[in-house]
Amino acid sequence: MAKNKLVYYFGDGKADGTAKMKNLLGGKGANLAEMCRLGIPVPAGFTITTEVCGFFDKKNAKVPAELKKQVEANLKKAEKAMGAKFGDTKNPLLVSVRSGARVSMPGMMDTILNLGLNDKTVKGLITQSGDARFAYDSYRRFVQMYGDVVMGMPSDAHGHDRFELMLDALKKKRKARTDVDLSGDDLKGLVAQFKQAIKKHTGKAFPEDPMQQLWGAVHAVFDSWYNKRAYEYRRMNDIPHDWGTAVNVCSMVYGNMGEDSGTGVAFTRNPATGEKGLFGEYLINAQGEDVVAGTRTPEPISKLAEVMPKIYKEYDRLSTKLEKHYRDMQDMEFTIQRGKLWMLQTRTGKRTGFAAVNIAVDMVNEKLIKPEEALLRLEADQLNQVLQPIFDDKAKSAALREGRLLAKGLNAGPGAACGHIAFTPEKAVEYAAKGQTSLLVRIETSPEDISGMKASAGILTARGGATSHAALVARQMGKVCVAGCGDLQIDYKKKTMKAAGKTLKEGDFLSLDGTTGEVIQGKVETKASEVIQALVPNTDLPAAARKKLMQKAAKGHVYKNFQQILGWADKYRRLRVRTNADQPDQSAVAVAFGAEGIGLTRTEHMFFGEGTNNDKITAVRQMILADDEKGRRAALKKLLPMQRKDFEGIFTAMNGKPVTIRTLDPPLHEFLPHDKKAIAQLAKSMKKTPAQVAAKIESLAESNPMLGHRGCRLGIVYPEITEMQAQAIIEAAINISKKGVKVMPEIMIPLVTREAELANQAEVVRQVCDETLKKAKSKVKYMVGTMIEIPRAALTADEIANQAEFFSFGTNDLTQTGMGISRDDSAGFLGYYAEKGIMEKNPFESLDTTGIGRLMEIAVEGGRKTRPDIKLGICGEHGGDPSSIEFCHKLGLAYVSCSPFRVPVARLAAAIAELKYPSKAAKKAKARPKKKAGKKKK
Amino acid sequence: MAKNKLVYYFGDGKADGTAKMKNLLGGKGANLAEMCRLGIPVPAGFTITTEVCGFFDKKNAKVPAELKKQVEANLKKAEKAMGAKFGDTKNPLLVSVRSGARVSMPGMMDTILNLGLNDKTVKGLITQSGDARFAYDSYRRFVQMYGDVVMGMPSDAHGHDRFELMLDALKKKRKARTDVDLSGDDLKGLVAQFKQAIKKHTGKAFPEDPMQQLWGAVHAVFDSWYNKRAYEYRRMNDIPHDWGTAVNVCSMVYGNMGEDSGTGVAFTRNPATGEKGLFGEYLINAQGEDVVAGTRTPEPISKLAEVMPKIYKEYDRLSTKLEKHYRDMQDMEFTIQRGKLWMLQTRTGKRTGFAAVNIAVDMVNEKLIKPEEALLRLEADQLNQVLQPIFDDKAKSAALREGRLLAKGLNAGPGAACGHIAFTPEKAVEYAAKGQTSLLVRIETSPEDISGMKASAGILTARGGATSHAALVARQMGKVCVAGCGDLQIDYKKKTMKAAGKTLKEGDFLSLDGTTGEVIQGKVETKASEVIQALVPNTDLPAAARKKLMQKAAKGHVYKNFQQILGWADKYRRLRVRTNADQPDQSAVAVAFGAEGIGLTRTEHMFFGEGTNNDKITAVRQMILADDEKGRRAALKKLLPMQRKDFEGIFTAMNGKPVTIRTLDPPLHEFLPHDKKAIAQLAKSMKKTPAQVAAKIESLAESNPMLGHRGCRLGIVYPEITEMQAQAIIEAAINISKKGVKVMPEIMIPLVTREAELANQAEVVRQVCDETLKKAKSKVKYMVGTMIEIPRAALTADEIANQAEFFSFGTNDLTQTGMGISRDDSAGFLGYYAEKGIMEKNPFESLDTTGIGRLMEIAVEGGRKTRPDIKLGICGEHGGDPSSIEFCHKLGLAYVSCSPFRVPVARLAAAIAELKYPSKAAKKAKARPKKKAGKKKK
Repeated sequence: MAKNKLVYYFGDGKADGTAKMKNLLGGKGANLAEMCRLGIPVPAGFTITTEVCGFFDKKNAKVPAELKKQVEANLKKAEKAMGAKFGDTKNPLLVSVRSGARVSMPGMMDTILNLGLNDKTVKGLITQSGDARFAYDSYRRFVQMYGDVVMGMPSDAHGHDRFELMLDALKKKRKARTDVDLSGDDLKGLVAQFKQAIKKHTGKAFPEDPMQQLWGAVHAVFDSWYNKRAYEYRRMNDIPHDWGTAVNVCSMVYGNMGEDSGTGVAFTRNPATGEKGLFGEYLINAQGEDVVAGTRTPEPISKLAEVMPKIYKEYDRLSTKLEKHYRDMQDMEFTIQRGKLWMLQTRTGKRTGFAAVNIAVDMVNEKLIKPEEALLRLEADQLNQVLQPIFDDKAKSAALREGRLLAKGLNAGPGAACGHIAFTPEKAVEYAAKGQTSLLVRIETSPEDISGMKASAGILTARGGATSHAALVARQMGKVCVAGCGDLQIDYKKKTMKAAGKTLKEGDFLSLDGTTGEVIQGKVETKASEVIQALVPNTDLPAAARKKLMQKAAKGHVYKNFQQILGWADKYRRLRVRTNADQPDQSAVAVAFGAEGIGLTRTEHMFFGEGTNNDKITAVRQMILADDEKGRRAALKKLLPMQRKDFEGIFTAMNGKPVTIRTLDPPLHEFLPHDKKAIAQLAKSMKKTPAQVAAKIESLAESNPMLGHRGCRLGIVYPEITEMQAQAIIEAAINISKKGVKVMPEIMIPLVTREAELANQAEVVRQVCDETLKKAKSKVKYMVGTMIEIPRAALTADEIANQAEFFSFGTNDLTQTGMGISRDDSAGFLGYYAEKGIMEKNPFESLDTTGIGRLMEIAVEGGRKTRPDIKLGICGEHGGDPSSIEFCHKLGLAYVSCSPFRVPVARLAAAIAELKYPSKAAKKAKARPKKKAGKKKK
Repeated sequence: MAKNKLVYYFGDGKADGTAKMKNLLGGKGANLAEMCRLGIPVPAGFTITTEVCGFFDKKNAKVPAELKKQVEANLKKAEKAMGAKFGDTKNPLLVSVRSGARVSMPGMMDTILNLGLNDKTVKGLITQSGDARFAYDSYRRFVQMYGDVVMGMPSDAHGHDRFELMLDALKKKRKARTDVDLSGDDLKGLVAQFKQAIKKHTGKAFPEDPMQQLWGAVHAVFDSWYNKRAYEYRRMNDIPHDWGTAVNVCSMVYGNMGEDSGTGVAFTRNPATGEKGLFGEYLINAQGEDVVAGTRTPEPISKLAEVMPKIYKEYDRLSTKLEKHYRDMQDMEFTIQRGKLWMLQTRTGKRTGFAAVNIAVDMVNEKLIKPEEALLRLEADQLNQVLQPIFDDKAKSAALREGRLLAKGLNAGPGAACGHIAFTPEKAVEYAAKGQTSLLVRIETSPEDISGMKASAGILTARGGATSHAALVARQMGKVCVAGCGDLQIDYKKKTMKAAGKTLKEGDFLSLDGTTGEVIQGKVETKASEVIQALVPNTDLPAAARKKLMQKAAKGHVYKNFQQILGWADKYRRLRVRTNADQPDQSAVAVAFGAEGIGLTRTEHMFFGEGTNNDKITAVRQMILADDEKGRRAALKKLLPMQRKDFEGIFTAMNGKPVTIRTLDPPLHEFLPHDKKAIAQLAKSMKKTPAQVAAKIESLAESNPMLGHRGCRLGIVYPEITEMQAQAIIEAAINISKKGVKVMPEIMIPLVTREAELANQAEVVRQVCDETLKKAKSKVKYMVGTMIEIPRAALTADEIANQAEFFSFGTNDLTQTGMGISRDDSAGFLGYYAEKGIMEKNPFESLDTTGIGRLMEIAVEGGRKTRPDIKLGICGEHGGDPSSIEFCHKLGLAYVSCSPFRVPVARLAAAIAELKYPSKAAKKAKARPKKKAGKKKK
């Protein structure tokens, strides 16, 4: 342990630590120290470092010997600062004991408040506060918390909290509606009852000695880092288990000491929308836990300006100071104790994608941060949120007119969601499993609801404010959320919710407008988001209306900020971003989103054309069912003009950008029907008997089609297919280039595992292309390359590069073969794997950089050895995943290719990757534009 | 070109070259030179080196300028030696021009005989031979050969040889039966006719100038190295294309100069049996091509002793000299010209496996060679031949004559078998129970057929390749197998098979020749090979009879030599050889063949027990169909004692040798029935409805089972399965060790792709084993390791080795995943691949050392980095393939494991590998025994 300094003091304008010591002190501890240094009023206390947590784990729940002395010394300093004494019977110092990891893990670990109370010190608290009821309430809460968290008080046989049962019994006896109606004596009696129960059920007596209490709590915090819930949270959020938590011991201040006291939480900007200005809530005469728990609905922070104008002004000042100091939006807890404002915590505020985009741009405009910092603060995936659909104005107005508005709550997570009501997380998961959309409706949410929140499209709660668990998690997940909707009456037993005189059952349709907080009965039509409206032509509208709509949307705030972010991203990123698109309209959308080319056109997707046009698939089937090459060639001849037309459309849409086209990939049986009726129909059209067609289908069946007769294996056995496709591509390229459009076709051979395969297919392609170009006297340039999607291809990339002008990593198949996992069959065990921590991320969503990544490294190295200028890209679905994009950036690929709607995310992710891991090549490329930008600024 | 010596003379007891100059002079040229040096009478001539062939290729069909002079000079020397002159009209020297590569490529390249004849020199030949008909016959043959080979005479529109047509027309005209009936004048006319045709169809005149003839022929030989047929031959036989051919120009001698002339071929030992003594055939008054062409039936060489005793004696003397000189069995061509014996060629003779084994041992006994040389001369696969039961030649010939050949399939399991047709495994078991021999005839086989395959003498399938389930199991069992016999039409319902227009019913007799792939109607007698009789107890016989048979067989010549070879092999090899065996009887056979342990026991193979005992599969099915863990555990409890008993049997049979046992591997659906009746039966026994059972089966179906829920993925989701298997293994080990037998179980987890998977399963195994050992107070040692059979496992072997005490390469699956090829689905395209030269060897038979081998290298390196003493082996089927064994040897694996019947081949292959690539470790190990051996020798 470095320097053996295990405890860091803060308070009274001084602090041992700073904001930079997050790794050692945790986020909370570092910020408490920093606030002290800034002269912010913080109750004095100290932080036990995260290193002790690691020691605690390794040494089997023991803490270092020297810790005791250091804690005692720092406790003394706090006593001095607060003018009170720990364990004193007249003026006792009470403390909170909280966890504090490097990153916030809300609600995941345990906290103890009011520590230091016992039968003697409670007298001192009475003396100090002059309020016996308050003192015994604090004592009761402490004993309850301590009993639960530190002493492990068990629930009863029905799973009920024994403390709560005793409290409820007493309330019943006293006919009290809430615990506020209980007297000081009632609470005193309850404390005694609680202690007896602890003795009975845990076998251990509640410790009266405050120091013993303190050590028990410290151990409990360390323990809580290792509990299952926290473990799961870390797993889901990629937090290393060995980071550990710090323990913050902080003097208690009380917001529940009367009407001149209070407590609250606020952000410096609106975490849902990004709007500048204090945003939050408070409660008069309450403790912090009352705000977080959502048992009482708090008031909006703006009201504090009326109730306590001086305090509000001071708080506003401190908030501004903190935001300026940290140069980011802050999330701050405060308590007012008898007219004195204490700041309990500040941290960077979590925000929705909307807010993130807006705050990032606003802060750059305010010159608070630079564009690079703005980008680095974003998670690329957040961009996605501003692409999500919103309610159609007309449809919503109609719904309101029809009287379907049920209630209005806090607009805690913007966006529109519509689905079946689910009252339990299990039900939400059930709907998701069936592929149905649900909304999770809860009185309030707790960490146990996480799975249900994840599975649902939106969250609605009856209790809790903008900083409640529901709002917080929804923001983090980017879910639509309406919180604290007090008018709702939810009955879990009956599975109903009542509002506006109506009763809805589980399964009924509901709509949530997370932007306005409206809860609407039934379904409401959604429409494209502002960004989509501005970028993607709505082909249902006439041209003029379409243009108008797009122009209007393009004036929107969100759209402008979205484009600003991407503009900055384009300045920094080295990776090019292409798209996977099989149709001209998809290609156009991708270009609107900034795609710089097509990384993958799946020719076979073209075979299944739109509704009316069945000619393509018919010709494909004729080709497959042909008895010989002659028959196949006849069918392919019909396909040629259709494929050519498709390619012409794509080349036109891409207007000079490179287009990678993959030759036929799936096994032939995928194109044949499997039900009797369709087989009979097909047989008729082919002038064959159904039995003949069925026999052919049977003969094409495979045990493992994924590893079967597909990819270049088809083109090698049936070169006429490759010939036709090469012909269609090159003819389309010639035709479009004659119209003055530059065309850059890159013909890609799939499923290659060895040089000889590619040599075979490349020869077929080059022969057809060169002859056709010669005949047409065209000078269109084309390239021939291959997918790297089988381990052997990666391993022998040096040989394959003899034939390939480019490689494109097909990481879907590379993951399937490299890991021996069929994606279609993996649901059954990958769930268990995640549960048991064997494989945390789904390797089909996020690239397995250790295994599959190593194959990619080998391939890149091999390819470059043979052909230093080989063009390298990725067209697997990982091309749209930010962490995979980061890996591709580090690998030095030229581009990533993803689905059209992921293009913005990829652009941003590429920029973030470059800012995190600057590449030499990029530095060179950036050299020139940087100078220009510099001049402009100056 | 080195030293610029392009031509090497031989003749008259002198030669420029030696036998060691094969690379430069080709095999034939080097041997001609060597024979001259030995004083063997060889017609004088010279060899143009292989380097000229390379020059010829690079310089676009040109030869070096200095070649002309050297050829002329050497021609002069040959003229002198033979006392004749090239182009002389009185006593013309005629020559043959032949190719001669480093290794023999029989019939692959062109040859010209009688070169030097023209309208003038033919007169000289008449003068010399006194036989105008002979002279014109030679002339006619020369013009025809030259026209075809050098001048490229085209065939007619029907593809007929124009020369042959003219010859046939003349014979018809003359009413001649053969060309012997044509007169000298007839042949003279034909020569003129041939020349006219050449002029007409090639546009060029036949060259009258002998020197021009010579150069044309030399060019043609070089050309022929590059023709398609030769190219294909080299590809198939792994001969580098840049080796090139030499050209041998050799004086003609004639075996067709009358009754004192003749020609023949003979071996110094019998190439079929290895028996010592001249073995061959000859023809009087004939040219060499007559013997090869088979138009006249030659006489056995022994008869020559009667006809020409002096010549025979001389030939015998020269043969002995040559064999002693070359220290190997020789294959020699000779010609007798007017009572003078000329040796035209000598080379090492090709031989059968039987002969190879016998000759190797005999030559060591004769002190002609050392044991190391004996081993290096063998191909390990040849050993297999002496294990196979064979048809009696006479019986089979008779059957074919009677038209009983039904079809021909893949020769998937060598040997001969004959029995009743059984269309179901049950039927085969039924026959076996009655003591009758059956052949299992299936469209294709699956694990459910195992009992039937075991019960039958051979397997015939309509579908599937040489590596299909049927072929695989057949090899492991040492069964005869003809697979993928597409011409068969099998009707399970009618219980018939149709082929060659015949319909056979169940129970009809059928014979399979697994060596040739022939399927023959009715019975053809078979018998076990001598080696098998000596080593494998025939459990059908009473103990006494069995013993007698084995003792008798063990006295056999072949058996003794077989064991001698293996004895030598064991002395040199470094690799250990284990076996893949799932049953005690298989294990016993493997031990008899020299297995040093079991490398793979597939526990699931045990589930499909023998005929009557269906308890195991029933319990397995109950386990699979159970609704919850409790139900699964109940079923597993029934399985436990049965598995334990199996393991006890294996441990007993292996008697102290290490046994690797793999936990459950295949997907669960493989254990469930698929036909309605069986499902109904199963449902009844499980107290479920058929619909319930069918639904479960349906729910387990997978798109790509190979990449699905199998291997350790089962054990992770259902740890109770692994627990039961570990329990059974360790209990069996404890029980057997208590009997004083050493037991070394190695528990192997399949399909691992990452450390966490193995960690999970290893923990389950170790917990069960350690607890059980503790309870039993046993000190049995066990190991836990893993298969490396998925690319990711190989790539992350360094991590996996943290958990694994050993790695065993599962190269079947490693090939499937690493190449992205499903073995079962590969027949469709691998055929084309071989045909088109894209993939020459079947990667499931012979390890793809470039790609899959690289993965193995990475894994070995990674494994050793983490755990330097990690035990490394291979249990894929490649473990029995000699070239793969060589790779494993070079990789430094500890052992290979193969099917019991492949063990001898593997032992020999391992020794050959060590002799070719001596390993450091082996040198150390050999240090001691070598000294001892050295002393004995001295």
